[in-house]
Amino acid sequence: MEALPPDQQPINLIGGGLAGSLMAVYLAQKGFRVNVYERRADMRQQLLDGGRSINLALSERGIHALREVGLEEEIMEIAIPMYGRMMHAVDGSLTFQAYSKDQQTCIYSVSRAELNARMMNLSESLKLVDFFFEQRAEDIDFESGEVYLKDLATNRSYKAPGRVSIACDGAFSAVRYAMQKTPRFNLEQAYLDHGYKELSIPAGPDNRFQLEPNALHIWPRGSFMMIALPNLDGTFTCTLFLPFEGEWGFDALKTPDRVHLFFETFFPDALPLMPHLLDDFFNNPTGSLVTIRCYPWAKKDRILLMGDASHAIVPFFGQGMNAGFEDCSILNKYIDQHAPDWGKVFDEFQQDRKPNAEAIADMALENFIEMRDTVADPEFLLRKKVMHHLARHIPEFQSRYEWVSFSTIPYAEAYRRGQINDQIIDTLLDGISSLEEIDLQQAETLVKEMFAL
Amino acid sequence: MEALPPDQQPINLIGGGLAGSLMAVYLAQKGFRVNVYERRADMRQQLLDGGRSINLALSERGIHALREVGLEEEIMEIAIPMYGRMMHAVDGSLTFQAYSKDQQTCIYSVSRAELNARMMNLSESLKLVDFFFEQRAEDIDFESGEVYLKDLATNRSYKAPGRVSIACDGAFSAVRYAMQKTPRFNLEQAYLDHGYKELSIPAGPDNRFQLEPNALHIWPRGSFMMIALPNLDGTFTCTLFLPFEGEWGFDALKTPDRVHLFFETFFPDALPLMPHLLDDFFNNPTGSLVTIRCYPWAKKDRILLMGDASHAIVPFFGQGMNAGFEDCSILNKYIDQHAPDWGKVFDEFQQDRKPNAEAIADMALENFIEMRDTVADPEFLLRKKVMHHLARHIPEFQSRYEWVSFSTIPYAEAYRRGQINDQIIDTLLDGISSLEEIDLQQAETLVKEMFAL
Repeated sequence: MEALPPDQQPINLIGGGLAGSLMAVYLAQKGFRVNVYERRADMRQQLLDGGRSINLALSERGIHALREVGLEEEIMEIAIPMYGRMMHAVDGSLTFQAYSKDQQTCIYSVSRAELNARMMNLSESLKLVDFFFEQRAEDIDFESGEVYLKDLATNRSYKAPGRVSIACDGAFSAVRYAMQKTPRFNLEQAYLDHGYKELSIPAGPDNRFQLEPNALHIWPRGSFMMIALPNLDGTFTCTLFLPFEGEWGFDALKTPDRVHLFFETFFPDALPLMPHLLDDFFNNPTGSLVTIRCYPWAKKDRILLMGDASHAIVPFFGQGMNAGFEDCSILNKYIDQHAPDWGKVFDEFQQDRKPNAEAIADMALENFIEMRDTVADPEFLLRKKVMHHLARHIPEFQSRYEWVSFSTIPYAEAYRRGQINDQIIDTLLDGISSLEEIDLQQAETLVKEMFAL
Repeated sequence: MEALPPDQQPINLIGGGLAGSLMAVYLAQKGFRVNVYERRADMRQQLLDGGRSINLALSERGIHALREVGLEEEIMEIAIPMYGRMMHAVDGSLTFQAYSKDQQTCIYSVSRAELNARMMNLSESLKLVDFFFEQRAEDIDFESGEVYLKDLATNRSYKAPGRVSIACDGAFSAVRYAMQKTPRFNLEQAYLDHGYKELSIPAGPDNRFQLEPNALHIWPRGSFMMIALPNLDGTFTCTLFLPFEGEWGFDALKTPDRVHLFFETFFPDALPLMPHLLDDFFNNPTGSLVTIRCYPWAKKDRILLMGDASHAIVPFFGQGMNAGFEDCSILNKYIDQHAPDWGKVFDEFQQDRKPNAEAIADMALENFIEMRDTVADPEFLLRKKVMHHLARHIPEFQSRYEWVSFSTIPYAEAYRRGQINDQIIDTLLDGISSLEEIDLQQAETLVKEMFAL
């Protein structure tokens, strides 16, 4: 039927964003031909035009995948290390919380566009990968695996040549919308009552950073918060997370005066650094925050959903991209083991990965509470202090944040270990009310017992 | 802009099934013009052709709504009372469990098609209602409320005239699929691992019923079950609920021999009554069982989802249609109060109805376990016996089944009362292991205390 023997047919990658571009590299390095169909225009063009700086937190899971394809060094050139959280109180006082007792362990702020562009360039340089832009997935025959696309420039519809497709088309995946109507496809899309708005802090004189660059800045305010990550050009991209409704919700911040008052009241130290605040606030869209859970991710040996298409999460653990990159690494492992038996590749991938996707989705939601409430609850603050205390003094103790951000143990295992940490802290706090009363000897014994070290 | 003043514009009802037809009656009786757009052909034609008998359990909530529109008597003509469950053991022995201590309290087996047809006839007779068949909802502008439809006979697309639309288009609602892509629409679609297959028991000589007609028959078998409801023509419609996978799952029942063996093994008393078993089994489709939860149901004063479109549930409490009819009754109440302020009508409806939809969805899933497992767990059986014992001997005690099926208290309240019943039974069973040891005096005091009677 086909001009090419089955194993030489191109693999369709639907979506050329972060996960799609990286997966294209993995596949091409194995010798597969890959056609990447991306709905948007080539974002490398936009990059040349100087688009807005939007950055992401890259941590060990993502770096591990970049290392596997040989991109680590190149990406590290554009990565800004962040060694901890810089908490901004309303009175302007700063508190630095290192991510790890080892001051060298860090996450990185990376430009989404730069990262995407470099992966696209690498995959194209491998010759086996072709990118097709402004191509929208229109329909899929889940029996035959046929994918129908529309060229948005010419309005022409056509059938993609390959019969194995991997959908990396994001939280609002067109492939998933089609799969949703097939029998027994389970799906949940759950929005937070909070939205987000991107704002900016420009560079100071001589392109100097106006805040400490090697930290992730957080302004926790109970029911809302702002964060800021550094960019290479000396700017910071801020993200304000705010309820849609209520006195200080997006729906009530409709006038410049009101927005100014809001920042004056809650972010007085940031306000003088944000000369474009009102322009940013009223010109940038208000984003929503969704968690997507679905299953199964695969249709036989035909189609696989991966990355945000299969498990979009809220951004509060900084793991969306890292989880997508880890997907690529793990899918690559199963391709090594089972290709060209794509049915087996896809099935083992989804069985391996689904519980981990659930775990990071849950942890990201929990972290939202943790990040915004850090100021509020004394009991919660004491627990946090105890955790940092244990992390500092007991070599075997690691926080859940460290398991998630600085290791590649499965997310579900990180979740489990975090629960054990909580039990340990419960036990240590039983009957006492301050950090000083903690018995470190007891703590070390407990840690060793509970983790059966 | 419009030929008619706003309050004389027709209301669009998307979907002319059970909920849609009944809602059309309610609206027309208030003097609203109604256009009903139904994707399928006129099912009254099919009825004349002698379609398969598919029946549903009608209980108080549904009857209450039919009573409100004056249809109770006409529907009772085609309703077969079922006073309890007739349990069929593997050895063929029968156990009858009345639904209520009052032997007159019953649910009814009603033909879905007859019921639908009679509501359509009534609404058309009111002159204000027009049914348009083979019209598919294609797109909706949720800002303007404009609804675009396609005439499937002519392939012509057009815009419906009204600006207020009520979507009653079922579990796979096209309107909900469109609404799903609007901002912050929460959705869950969750399938059971079980499917269902409709089978039949024909009438005996002289069109006599071959099983007791005034009962809902159940063959509980642990991980699966069969039920049967009577039809007016002396037949029974059976529904087999079975896992898709496993030794005795649908996926493994692929040959006539295997299906015969399955029935011989598990339903030996039913097998001789089912001469068309193999034809039914291999010709009828295997259905899936989905729970749909979503929110919000309304877009401003423009569009409302109701019935299965907003809260499809599994059939194990016999409440799908009843919940849809109760939706109509409650929406009617808010129309009385607030129309033509449709924004307020829709918002009060969804706030009132959402917790009740959640409650019946949960109870229907719980009832699945209860119905299929009735044979298995001795502790569970003892609890059931205690419940029946209390219901018989304590006038103030009512089972959750009774609150759901024989009252119109909100589903969420029925759920809460069921939880109190469970606590009462827990307390009574504490330290004892047989029905005889129950202290009825203590039980009565407990019931009065817990329900603060």
